[in-house]
Order: sequence, then structure tokens, then C-alpha cells
Amino acid sequence: MTEALRELSARLAEVSDLERAARVLGWDQQTMMPPGGAAARAEQLATLGRIAHERFTAPEIGRLLERLRPHEEALPPDSDEACLIRVARRDYEKAVRVPAELRAEMLRAASLGHQAWVDARAASDFPGFLPHLQRNVDLALRYVECFEPAGEPYDVLLDDYEEGATTAEVRAVFEQLKDGLLPLVASVGERGGGPDPLRGPFPVDTQRRVIDAVLARLGFDPGSWRLDVAAHPFATTFAVSDVRLTTRYGEGDLSALFGAMHEFGHGLYERSVSPELERTPLAGGVSLGLHESQSRLWENLVGRGRPFCRWLFPLVREAFPDALRDLDEDGFYRGINRIVPSLIRVDADEVTYCLHVILRFELELELMNGTIALRELPEAWNARMLEYLGVDVPDDARGVLQDVHWSGGTFGYFPTYALGTIMSVQIWEQAQARIPDLDAQLEAGEVGELREWLRDGLHVHGRKFTPQETLERLVGGPLDAGPYLAYLTRKLDGLYAVA
Amino acid sequence: MTEALRELSARLAEVSDLERAARVLGWDQQTMMPPGGAAARAEQLATLGRIAHERFTAPEIGRLLERLRPHEEALPPDSDEACLIRVARRDYEKAVRVPAELRAEMLRAASLGHQAWVDARAASDFPGFLPHLQRNVDLALRYVECFEPAGEPYDVLLDDYEEGATTAEVRAVFEQLKDGLLPLVASVGERGGGPDPLRGPFPVDTQRRVIDAVLARLGFDPGSWRLDVAAHPFATTFAVSDVRLTTRYGEGDLSALFGAMHEFGHGLYERSVSPELERTPLAGGVSLGLHESQSRLWENLVGRGRPFCRWLFPLVREAFPDALRDLDEDGFYRGINRIVPSLIRVDADEVTYCLHVILRFELELELMNGTIALRELPEAWNARMLEYLGVDVPDDARGVLQDVHWSGGTFGYFPTYALGTIMSVQIWEQAQARIPDLDAQLEAGEVGELREWLRDGLHVHGRKFTPQETLERLVGGPLDAGPYLAYLTRKLDGLYAVA
Repeated sequence: MTEALRELSARLAEVSDLERAARVLGWDQQTMMPPGGAAARAEQLATLGRIAHERFTAPEIGRLLERLRPHEEALPPDSDEACLIRVARRDYEKAVRVPAELRAEMLRAASLGHQAWVDARAASDFPGFLPHLQRNVDLALRYVECFEPAGEPYDVLLDDYEEGATTAEVRAVFEQLKDGLLPLVASVGERGGGPDPLRGPFPVDTQRRVIDAVLARLGFDPGSWRLDVAAHPFATTFAVSDVRLTTRYGEGDLSALFGAMHEFGHGLYERSVSPELERTPLAGGVSLGLHESQSRLWENLVGRGRPFCRWLFPLVREAFPDALRDLDEDGFYRGINRIVPSLIRVDADEVTYCLHVILRFELELELMNGTIALRELPEAWNARMLEYLGVDVPDDARGVLQDVHWSGGTFGYFPTYALGTIMSVQIWEQAQARIPDLDAQLEAGEVGELREWLRDGLHVHGRKFTPQETLERLVGGPLDAGPYLAYLTRKLDGLYAVA
Repeated sequence: MTEALRELSARLAEVSDLERAARVLGWDQQTMMPPGGAAARAEQLATLGRIAHERFTAPEIGRLLERLRPHEEALPPDSDEACLIRVARRDYEKAVRVPAELRAEMLRAASLGHQAWVDARAASDFPGFLPHLQRNVDLALRYVECFEPAGEPYDVLLDDYEEGATTAEVRAVFEQLKDGLLPLVASVGERGGGPDPLRGPFPVDTQRRVIDAVLARLGFDPGSWRLDVAAHPFATTFAVSDVRLTTRYGEGDLSALFGAMHEFGHGLYERSVSPELERTPLAGGVSLGLHESQSRLWENLVGRGRPFCRWLFPLVREAFPDALRDLDEDGFYRGINRIVPSLIRVDADEVTYCLHVILRFELELELMNGTIALRELPEAWNARMLEYLGVDVPDDARGVLQDVHWSGGTFGYFPTYALGTIMSVQIWEQAQARIPDLDAQLEAGEVGELREWLRDGLHVHGRKFTPQETLERLVGGPLDAGPYLAYLTRKLDGLYAVA
């Protein structure tokens, strides 16, 4: 029986190697590749994806999983081995439904779509992007059909990123969020944002040095991490000890710093997965929602929290003495927490952020249900931006073309940003309960105990448990938007009271 | 029959994609990867290599090649299709001799050996590198055994880099080279090198700007090329229009500039292969010797030639006004052509360079014949450096550990550097005959006509013909060390006459 497990592990390791290799190619494409490489890269990614899929869906894997059923049932359910067999079986049963050629087509279209999106965004040219988007939507619908979904078609897409979550659940929690957020946004509008005290100029080289210092303090170690520049920042890992972060710099704000802390949260999650799980399907974050809970936690609950400002402000002040001349610690705290409805999701503040996500979720649902034509997307986008956030979208580059996801055929992903945001506050409250002097530690820039608590309670498990089980183990309950809305209300009151 | 060719092409394209993907991983490893990524990267490369090998040696490929024999014989022998079938068959017949597991072992050992070499070179720690070298030698010997060689075992290794060349031929041409070079080196020693006029400091940022300007003039276009930093500079291509160059910077000399021109020569070769050959085994340089002929041509015959100095010197002088204060164009020409026996192959001048290569060839032969023990390698290296070049090797970092090749199990590769150097002068004489005002063009920094002549006569063919046929088509005759030795004698006379 151990022989069967050994063979299964070897086969899964090979699939993992192929998937990690594809990540290297994807990372290179987004950070390093000259544009001339795009067409060939699409073929290379399609080939890697097709072979990984073929190998993973080989009948031998199905037979091994079947043979290992009694072995699995005899093991403690939370052992690495039992989890490996269980998760591999779940992945396998999903994967065998998708023909290899469809998978390859999706990867090829994604790669070509990415390059087209880069060009279209630069030129604010939605019509130029439209054929690629159409192709991605068509392929996504073909993908959904592979699963003969019992519920809504969108459930199939969602399940790839947030296993076990349903469209109905997401819709319900998003309605609750909207009910809470729209009045908050309105109250912000009434109280007014005031002038932005953090307009720079922040020279890019200096920003890079500040980011290096902050990340080093958080746990970034050049022996296992890199930071590069990408048009759409992301984090990826090629191994437990090979983590790649990206950010993008603008002279006029500090979003690169908070973006880097965000990606650090993603990177730390995968960096802290048990090395025992390397080259198995368990090595990685359990869902995009929980992944996002980590990035949002480091970006907002640590990075934009009042205690950490005590450590961060002197560092930033010293780096940018001119730009921050008139600012004290309180002013800096208010500056990095300025609540102003705006155009770009990744630059949005904590209050408006989830409304950007909800807008995308609603449009994706309509796309998949066929209740909106693709060419109407910019108009629908702009109308909803006005409705939810009161902002006018001046062009598609800052509207419907701003995000990378649809260019890669990634539908069902956006909701996880808001789910993760909600979870981040549930997790944060648990961290505060478990580490009573957490605030004092953050004031001193000490994050070691927080990092260890997250590692032992969440990161180390990788994909061993379902997302729901994982969250339950960590915070003792299911997804709940209440703490997040309460946190925002408290934070807003504090910000305006201080002002 | 076209159906069979279509199927063969699709299978070969897939293999090409896997090989190109492996190149991306290798490039990343040498330019970007944090050290923590090494172990996983070794597994990833082994998996890609194993699968590429499995797919290429699949019995279906053999059957398709057999079925296509009549089709091939009916085609013009220099047509793309006939060449594809012929070259694929030759590659296939070699590849099927090597078990997939041995291939994977070699790749894994190469990847681990690379990281060990980086560390060992940094610490000048040959004993720390020894087990990896031993492993690589053992695997190379097992590889040789797969071919039951009729001649010398080394023939098998050589054939992978310079198809059709034999150890006996290389030995003969290297004896001729040695006979010509040793007196030249001795005469240089008598005439004396004088103080180095190009000691810098050359700030790295400024070097980078100069290199960007020079490469742009030669044909580097950011739409299809990148330049990065690597400990051991190299060039690689992920597609005809995705070329990656690397160089390494030192403040004390301009070797990064000439290194970049060297790698540009490699890159230009692959950049100019016919796009029709993309994703076939024909896309790439025909042999490492001919590849090196191109890098040496751009580094030395263009870059270090007297005519191009007229264009290059003002640019460099403007970039480094302090360091070059006392230098005129003639002095600069002598400075970049300073002939001084030295320790490091990649920094060696044109006269001593091939002796570095011959030393490595001789040691490799002894390693493969078992007439030298690995632990004696540093001693043998140092003795031969003294004998050929009259230099004392102070430590292994600047001796036996200086080159990357053996860390990756690459034996049989070194001779191609000298073969390429020889060919570069044969090709250059042909270029001068075909482009009568070439010198005047180079004085104006105009390389377009040279680039086109190289493209049409050499680059565009990729691997369609054998290395011997390819050289013959280009220069009208076989390999000949005579022109190279005559060129060196002329160049030395000119250098010392000017002085």
C-alpha cells in the first residue's frame, strides 16, 4: 500500500513541477519578458498546462486513488498522508471533467489575452481588447458546461478559487456588505476627504529602499524572496523557499509600499507552508479568500493600523523629509488611511474597496448568465461606479480595463478579494485575543509573534483542510461580515475624531 | 503523408516548448532566483528534461520518421521540410540511446552542481565542489557508454556541441594553434604589456548606459531583447523574438561592454533564424562553434577592431571623461586590445584566449580517459597555466573554479570556443570580401549590411545543414586555423607598430 502512495506522490510531484515551471514562465511574462516573446510564451504555457493536465488526469492516478481508499480511511484524517489522498482525489475528480484540449485553449487564450490587455490598457482601447475577452468568456462557458452544475453556472467558476463557496452565499454576504458600506461611503462623502497630505514627490529609488527596509522587518529574506516590478502586482512562489513579490511605483503616492506589504502577506502564507508538503498538491494557500485574508492583514491591519505607524512613520519621514515636512505621526496615519471614493480597485481605501469587488462580481454574473453583451460592459461599469461610489470614469483604462483578471480568462476570482477582506478582520480579532500585547509589539515594529501565530494556525497546513475547515480552526467560526463592518465603523470614527 | 508531417511537427513543437520552458527556468536560476529556490528548481528542471526526452523518444516519433522517409527523399534536400525530417531523425537516433532516468539525473545533478559551484567559487573551496564534480563526471561517463563509441569516448561529448567533429580533428587543429600561439605569447611577453590605460573607475550605472547605446546601435531592440546580470554571462532565447543577454560589471575595466557585445553575437544568431523554423528542432544555432564564431565576431572583429573604434571611442570618452582623460583614439584601441597573459578565460585577450581553452580541452580528455584524479585537478590546472601562459594561479576561484561548465556536467563544450574563434576570422575575411567598404561602415558605426550578410548567409538557416556544410556554404571551405593565426600576427604587429 505504501508502494501505491509512493507512486501517487511521485506522479503528483511531477505535476507540481510542471505547474511551478508554468508559474516561472508566467512570472517572467509579467515582470521581465520583452513583448516579442508573447506568442511563443502562449504556446509554451499551453503546452505545460496541457501536459500537466494530461499527467494529472491519467487513468493510473484514478486507479491509485481508488486503491488507496482503505489506506486513507485507516489514517488519522488530519495526517499529511490522509489529506494528500483526499485533496488529490477531489482535484482529480474535478480535473477529469475538463478535456486537455480545452484546458490548453484556455491557457493559450489567457496568454495572448494578457498581452492584448497590456496594449489595450495603455491605449484605453476596449474595442481592441473585446475579441480576446469574448474568447475568454466563450471558453469559460465551455468550461462550466464540463461540470453540469446543479446550481448556478457561476458556482463552477467560484469553486476553482474558493472551494465549497456558492454564488448564493456570496450574493448574500455581499448584500450585507453593500447594506453596511453604502451608508459608510455616504458618510465619508459628507465629512469630506480634505487635501491629500501624501502627494510626494516620493522618488522611486527611495521608495524602493523604504520597501526593502519594511519588508526585511516583516520577514522578507533575500535568500528566499525577490521583489520586482509588474504592471499588475502579484505574488507567486516557485518553491516554499522561492517567493516572488511584485509592486509598481508611482512618484505621487506610497501605494507601492502598501502594495508590497499586501504581496508580502501572500508570499508569507506560501513561504510558511510546511516544507513536508513541497511538491504535493497541498503546498499552497487553501483558497484565494484565505490567501487574500493574509495580504489584506499585512497591508491594512498591520500596515495601515495605528500601532505600526509608530514604527513606520519615522522611517518614512527620514526617507522623504521634504514631502513629509509638515506631517506628524497622526497626520501620517490619517494620510495613509484617507477614505476617498476613487477609480482604481488596487488603490482603493478600506471602506470603498469591497464595493469595487462587488461591482465586478455582479458584472461577471451577468456575463456568465448572458444578461449583458460584452460591448456594453464599459457603460455598465461606469454606471455602477457612479451609483456605488459616486465617481465618474473618465476612460476605460481607469475603468473596465484596469484589472488583469479577465484578460487571462479568470472569472470567479474577484469575489475572493472581498471574502478575504472579511476574513482578515475575523483573523485579526483572533490574533488580538491570542497575543494580548500585539499593539505594543507593532508599535516597536515587532511582528515575529504574529507571524508565528499565523504560521502555526494557518500557513503551515497548506491545503490540508477545506477553506471552511481552515477558517473554523483558526477563528472558531464561519465567514462573518459583521466584524469587518464594525471594524470599519470604529476606524472611521477614530480617524475623524482624531482629525 | 502531409498528415504524418503535421503530426511530427506538432510533436516536435511540444518538445521545443518544453525545452524553451526549461531555458526560462535556467535563465531565471542564473539571473534572478534567490538561493533558496535551488533544490526545487533542480527537480523542476529534471522533470521538464525527463518529459521532453520521453516525448521526443516516443516510439510514435520513430514510426513517423520512418513513414516520412520517401516523402523526405522526394523533397529538395535544402527545403525546410526535408531538413526538418533529416535533423529530427539524427537527433532522435541519438536521443533514444539515452534512458530518460539518466537524462533526468544529469539535469538534476547539473542544477544542484550549479548552486554548489556558485558557493564554492565565492569561497574558493574546490573540495566543497568536488563531490558535485565527481557526480557530473560519473554521469558523463555513463552517458558516453550509451553510444558505444567507435573512436575516443570524448567524441560522444564533443558531438553534442559540435556535431560531426572528432577528438582527433580537434587535437590536430589545437596542436597547430598551440604551435602558432605559444611563440606569439612569448613575443608579447618580451615586448611587454605596459600599464593598463583602462583602469577606470567606470561607474556601473554609466557602463550600463554605454552598453545600452552600443547594443542599440548593433541591433538590440527592447521589443525583443533583454540584458541582465549573471555571474557567468550567457545568452539564451525563449523564442526568435525573445532574446536574453547577460553580462557582469566591474568598476575597474570595460569587460562588461565587450562581454555584452559577445553575448549580442549569440543573441543575434538566434534572433535572425527564420521565423518559419520556430518551434522546430531547426530553430537555433547549428553548433556551438558557429555560435561562438558570431559572438567572437561581434566582440573582437567588430568591437575591438580599429575601424569601429572611431565610432565607439567618442561615446565611451564622453561617458567616462575622467577615467579616459589622457587617452586618444589610438590609445583607446591599444587599451581595449591589451595583450597580457592572465587568469580568467572570459577576460582573456585574443592572443591568449585559445590557450585557456586548449588547457581545458586537455584536462577534460584526461578526466574522461581517467588519466587524472579529480582531486589533482587544481594542481594540473595551475601547472599548465604556468607552462602555457606563464601565470601563477593564486587560488581556485581564479583557477579551476572560474567557469560554470563543469558544475553543470558540460564536458566537450570548451573546445567549441576555440573552434568558433578560428571560424570567426574565416567568416570575417569573407565579409570583407563581400562588403568592400565594410571598414568605412564600421567607422560610422553602421552594421546593418554586415548584419544582413550574416543573416542571409548563416543565421537564417538555423540547424538546416550540418555545421561543416553551414561553414562551407558561408566561407567556401572547411575549418582552417591559418587565417586566425595570420590575423593575430598582423594585429599584434599593428598594435606594437602604432605604439
